[in-house]
Amino acid sequence: MTEPRYDFRSDNVGGAAPEILEAVVAAASGTAAPYGDDDYTRSMNRQFAALFEREVQVFPLSSGTGSNSVALASLANRYGAIYCHETSHINVYECGAPEFFTGAKLVGLPGRDCKLQPEVLDEALALAGRGNPTRVQPFALNLTQPTDFGTLYRPAEVAALCEVAHRHGLRVHMDGARFANAIAALGCSPAELTWRAGVDVLSLGATKNGAINAEAVVVFDPAAAREIPFLMKRGGQVLSKARFVSAQLARYVADDRWLERAAAANAHAAWLARALTALPGVSLVAPVEINMLFLRMPQAAVAALDRGPFHFYKLGRDLRFVCRHDQEPEGMDALVHCVREALAVDAGRAAS
Amino acid sequence: MTEPRYDFRSDNVGGAAPEILEAVVAAASGTAAPYGDDDYTRSMNRQFAALFEREVQVFPLSSGTGSNSVALASLANRYGAIYCHETSHINVYECGAPEFFTGAKLVGLPGRDCKLQPEVLDEALALAGRGNPTRVQPFALNLTQPTDFGTLYRPAEVAALCEVAHRHGLRVHMDGARFANAIAALGCSPAELTWRAGVDVLSLGATKNGAINAEAVVVFDPAAAREIPFLMKRGGQVLSKARFVSAQLARYVADDRWLERAAAANAHAAWLARALTALPGVSLVAPVEINMLFLRMPQAAVAALDRGPFHFYKLGRDLRFVCRHDQEPEGMDALVHCVREALAVDAGRAAS
Amino acid sequence: MTEPRYDFRSDNVGGAAPEILEAVVAAASGTAAPYGDDDYTRSMNRQFAALFEREVQVFPLSSGTGSNSVALASLANRYGAIYCHETSHINVYECGAPEFFTGAKLVGLPGRDCKLQPEVLDEALALAGRGNPTRVQPFALNLTQPTDFGTLYRPAEVAALCEVAHRHGLRVHMDGARFANAIAALGCSPAELTWRAGVDVLSLGATKNGAINAEAVVVFDPAAAREIPFLMKRGGQVLSKARFVSAQLARYVADDRWLERAAAANAHAAWLARALTALPGVSLVAPVEINMLFLRMPQAAVAALDRGPFHFYKLGRDLRFVCRHDQEPEGMDALVHCVREALAVDAGRAAS
Amino acid sequence: MTEPRYDFRSDNVGGAAPEILEAVVAAASGTAAPYGDDDYTRSMNRQFAALFEREVQVFPLSSGTGSNSVALASLANRYGAIYCHETSHINVYECGAPEFFTGAKLVGLPGRDCKLQPEVLDEALALAGRGNPTRVQPFALNLTQPTDFGTLYRPAEVAALCEVAHRHGLRVHMDGARFANAIAALGCSPAELTWRAGVDVLSLGATKNGAINAEAVVVFDPAAAREIPFLMKRGGQVLSKARFVSAQLARYVADDRWLERAAAANAHAAWLARALTALPGVSLVAPVEINMLFLRMPQAAVAALDRGPFHFYKLGRDLRFVCRHDQEPEGMDALVHCVREALAVDAGRAAS
Repeated sequence: MTEPRYDFRSDNVGGAAPEILEAVVAAASGTAAPYGDDDYTRSMNRQFAALFEREVQVFPLSSGTGSNSVALASLANRYGAIYCHETSHINVYECGAPEFFTGAKLVGLPGRDCKLQPEVLDEALALAGRGNPTRVQPFALNLTQPTDFGTLYRPAEVAALCEVAHRHGLRVHMDGARFANAIAALGCSPAELTWRAGVDVLSLGATKNGAINAEAVVVFDPAAAREIPFLMKRGGQVLSKARFVSAQLARYVADDRWLERAAAANAHAAWLARALTALPGVSLVAPVEINMLFLRMPQAAVAALDRGPFHFYKLGRDLRFVCRHDQEPEGMDALVHCVREALAVDAGRAAS
Repeated sequence: MTEPRYDFRSDNVGGAAPEILEAVVAAASGTAAPYGDDDYTRSMNRQFAALFEREVQVFPLSSGTGSNSVALASLANRYGAIYCHETSHINVYECGAPEFFTGAKLVGLPGRDCKLQPEVLDEALALAGRGNPTRVQPFALNLTQPTDFGTLYRPAEVAALCEVAHRHGLRVHMDGARFANAIAALGCSPAELTWRAGVDVLSLGATKNGAINAEAVVVFDPAAAREIPFLMKRGGQVLSKARFVSAQLARYVADDRWLERAAAANAHAAWLARALTALPGVSLVAPVEINMLFLRMPQAAVAALDRGPFHFYKLGRDLRFVCRHDQEPEGMDALVHCVREALAVDAGRAAS
Repeated sequence: MTEPRYDFRSDNVGGAAPEILEAVVAAASGTAAPYGDDDYTRSMNRQFAALFEREVQVFPLSSGTGSNSVALASLANRYGAIYCHETSHINVYECGAPEFFTGAKLVGLPGRDCKLQPEVLDEALALAGRGNPTRVQPFALNLTQPTDFGTLYRPAEVAALCEVAHRHGLRVHMDGARFANAIAALGCSPAELTWRAGVDVLSLGATKNGAINAEAVVVFDPAAAREIPFLMKRGGQVLSKARFVSAQLARYVADDRWLERAAAANAHAAWLARALTALPGVSLVAPVEINMLFLRMPQAAVAALDRGPFHFYKLGRDLRFVCRHDQEPEGMDALVHCVREALAVDAGRAAS
Repeated sequence: MTEPRYDFRSDNVGGAAPEILEAVVAAASGTAAPYGDDDYTRSMNRQFAALFEREVQVFPLSSGTGSNSVALASLANRYGAIYCHETSHINVYECGAPEFFTGAKLVGLPGRDCKLQPEVLDEALALAGRGNPTRVQPFALNLTQPTDFGTLYRPAEVAALCEVAHRHGLRVHMDGARFANAIAALGCSPAELTWRAGVDVLSLGATKNGAINAEAVVVFDPAAAREIPFLMKRGGQVLSKARFVSAQLARYVADDRWLERAAAANAHAAWLARALTALPGVSLVAPVEINMLFLRMPQAAVAALDRGPFHFYKLGRDLRFVCRHDQEPEGMDALVHCVREALAVDAGRAAS
């Protein structure tokens, strides 16, 4: 078996962007107060305020799961429910961390292309038993943007879901682990996609787009922010040398490179999608809107990929490929070639 | 008021050691599997095995509080108690994180110089009500080494406490946030101070000694290790790009620089202790064994320090100074000078 | 509005059976050790062993929610999942208590008539990600028997589901809040319906069938029983004067009256189902197998019931009626009469 | 060995008072809404309002541990601390239930005769680090009244402690498992001992004084009451047939029998204390203010008691005896006789 050289498993297999690394090196000398009470963190806060065109409170941390869990905990009651899509990352891939930090039940709703629909949410919340002590009480809506299948909510779609949530007394958390890819694809402003559409708290991830374990809880509601320092400390999410994350985050949004990288990754995925779906028997499981592809293809092609120099994930019958901004062109070519050849051989066999 | 230039608050106000920074930069290119399933982490594990002279399982994370909490959770039952010194870090300064991760009650015992005594522990455990369902059931002993007051357990002292703990059915966790300072001061091997003396799980911190948010849970008991990946994920402690912590940890123990830095920091504190306690009315609250000093001094001196270019912490009546390996010599001189002058003026006033 | 006189809301609106009350009175004199370490509890344990034709360990408590939660906690890991039907009582009507006691996520599966199907369970567990630290790890299957819609699993159905669960490493909890109604309806032995079919822990409720807040956790697996006293105490489920519950439980199963009462309640529901579904436009939502009916009927009939001397529950469009063994015959007649009249008037209006 | 006939272990070894049993029997016929939404519970609420001379909200439950835990949870933040005496029941004998329900750390303070002192509390709270995210944030003071050693706080002592607590932003919970014994001994009104002195929530126990698993959470602060139905359900503390507890509680406070029983039990303990401490070498560990004695006596007397027809508890070197209102006079005589004889023989031996 060939040692895999081309890694399509996830964008977090990548390294660090040059300017991010420079920011880390620059932060490495001198002293700074620990635990986020430092000038790097204050400066980063100002920069996020500029990015989001309003006052925000931003908390730096190292784990995306931690970021989601703290954000949700800041909204939680103690006998509550978080509504989310049944395939959402918090519901499937965080080993119960959101439940652990909040004590809540996650209620997963169905919805095409991994997206929640306002009317489905509305009906579910109408039946949730508000005020009935035998029922958990909904406090938050989670929107994973982009979704775990790489699909996107438009600002108007976010707004429609937030309207339903707010009307039922819920606040809205956006899991933006790939927020950059969403902004790059939609071409809207961070403000439009979040607080202007009704989002209360955002988990903005930088790690998957060139940072080194740098995540941010971005709070638009000051009341929710008040308890976060305690919830973070209790959850082991406060960093001793927080400046190293804050310095990255400040640099990350200082110019457009984060969006350029995300756009490049998105473009790679679009190219791959076109090339692969041109082949017979290869189909998309979900629309390709960012840097992720979910595909189905004949077993012969899957087997060939398994033998080839590729890393990728299988989810049941689906194959998942994620592109990084610096995805190797020869890797993408090799991937398409591998599938094409396998299908040709297969077709030849069937014909003979 | 002068802007503080000399920071004695903690060793985590420092930056990053050069070789650590190099390791981060070196890890920044190429791809690697996420979540700790990468070659950097495997290599780091081998290096720790060499350091500890036996097989170990090491989990990289970014938070010292997270490290303590995960380590304790790996030992926990669900109706349990952790015995510790009443002043221990986990009992006082982690906002209940160990309780949150374990569900346990922390039982703080008294003891001179912040150190637990075997006979006090033995008596407390004898009265703990093993098997009685109205009582929480002890599962772990926490040793903070060095203690929060900068004192040290000798290997024989660790062994005596571990013997008591094991005899009562507890396992032993060592909180080694400043493990380097302990090893440097005691001159023993890491093995002697831990598993050879009976320690089951070690939280080894590198952050306070030149690393960038790099901590390790070092497990000597393979059974305890089995559940840790799940406990870490559920606690938001798994890092997406774990390689950046593993690369630091591997470099950290690759040669003796970690111990040289710790020895330098310890020496600075010893020098300061000698210089300051030579002044009238200045006394130590606890022996100075590592890089921390706890002092009491006349109010005039405290007031002068408050006016001076210094950062330091007050704990009730005590002043805490912590030295870094790269503590500025002029800062230490200024500190001694400031106290000496204030006391001289004060003595002059009293004499006049 | 007429003051409701006929109560069909639930079987727990009823009082106490005569022999149960006698058992309470008999237990009221003399002394007994507290917290379940008494002769009443030991004697009750022996009686349950006889009933189940094997050694069991039985824990008396007062809350059905507490009973389910403790039973599930006895099986739990700390990063786990409980599989259940999406409509199951533990998933919908216990305000998150099972999650609170276990720390687990509840995974609700679909299935006709509120019943789980082995192949659906098998497929879900196959995709659950056993051993993958990003995924919660399944540890228990919950069977609600009878289901919340009053349907029943046959012993062979229980066995098939237990086989799937055990094959995937889960243990099985049966929520038997109306266990008597199930046994009375199925005519099988308690052993056949539980451990012989593979059930590991049973929550057996007596309250809904004539007892006074008397519930039992019946453990077939001694290993699961070992931690229960601690889990109960920590959960506030240990009774100071446990003898008053144990005395009831012992009397409850001492002869066949519990089954006679359950059979009477079941018969009442069957009679009502026949009488009501004979009326035009009245249909069953689920088969009537025990003492519960779920019906849909024209709005005119619902409105008439709302005006009449009846208590009952609405679940969305469905009406729920539950019968007690001592349901008043005139109340059942009045119910049928009310619906019949309303529909006749309605039909008259439509015809005119 | 003689089979123990005289039980001094606790007052919860007793049965049920006649009028309590009558109330249970009277509640056993007819229907009533489940889960506390019934006329018995409403009527009980009115009766407690009369007893406490103000509006209150009272929640019936079956477990004293549950009552304490729910009461404390109603006051809790999610990163909090409960201050209490180090020997308090919630800190020692509830297997961590208060921690489980609240997520809080219990901070045990020392104090003579198991009583907290205002100045000790004040100093501890001043050092608690309000607002510092590394420290748990105090939210409640627990007063165990009577204490676990049978001592009492006077109303003025309660008021002084409440003043300190409120000044530091804490609310006050009184654990009144033996509230009747306190009222009977102090001769004050329930209002004087609770809300007039500053208590916010009271756990009032009736079980130890003649009731059958009947406890009440009495809430003086309506804001704290709002979340209790959810906290109770989530904690498995809601009773299906709550009327059976409410009926007991209503009857319990309907006349003065509860206080007469408590006074009788207190008098028995006072008589025993006088008789036993008149013997050589027998001394009290704590003042006898209610129905509990803590004694030390020569080993010969302890050995004789062990051989005699007595049940009692040993706590280290101390012997604990608790009297019930219906404690058998011959049992008390036999106890004194046994100790006297043993000491006489012992003295004879020493003299010979």
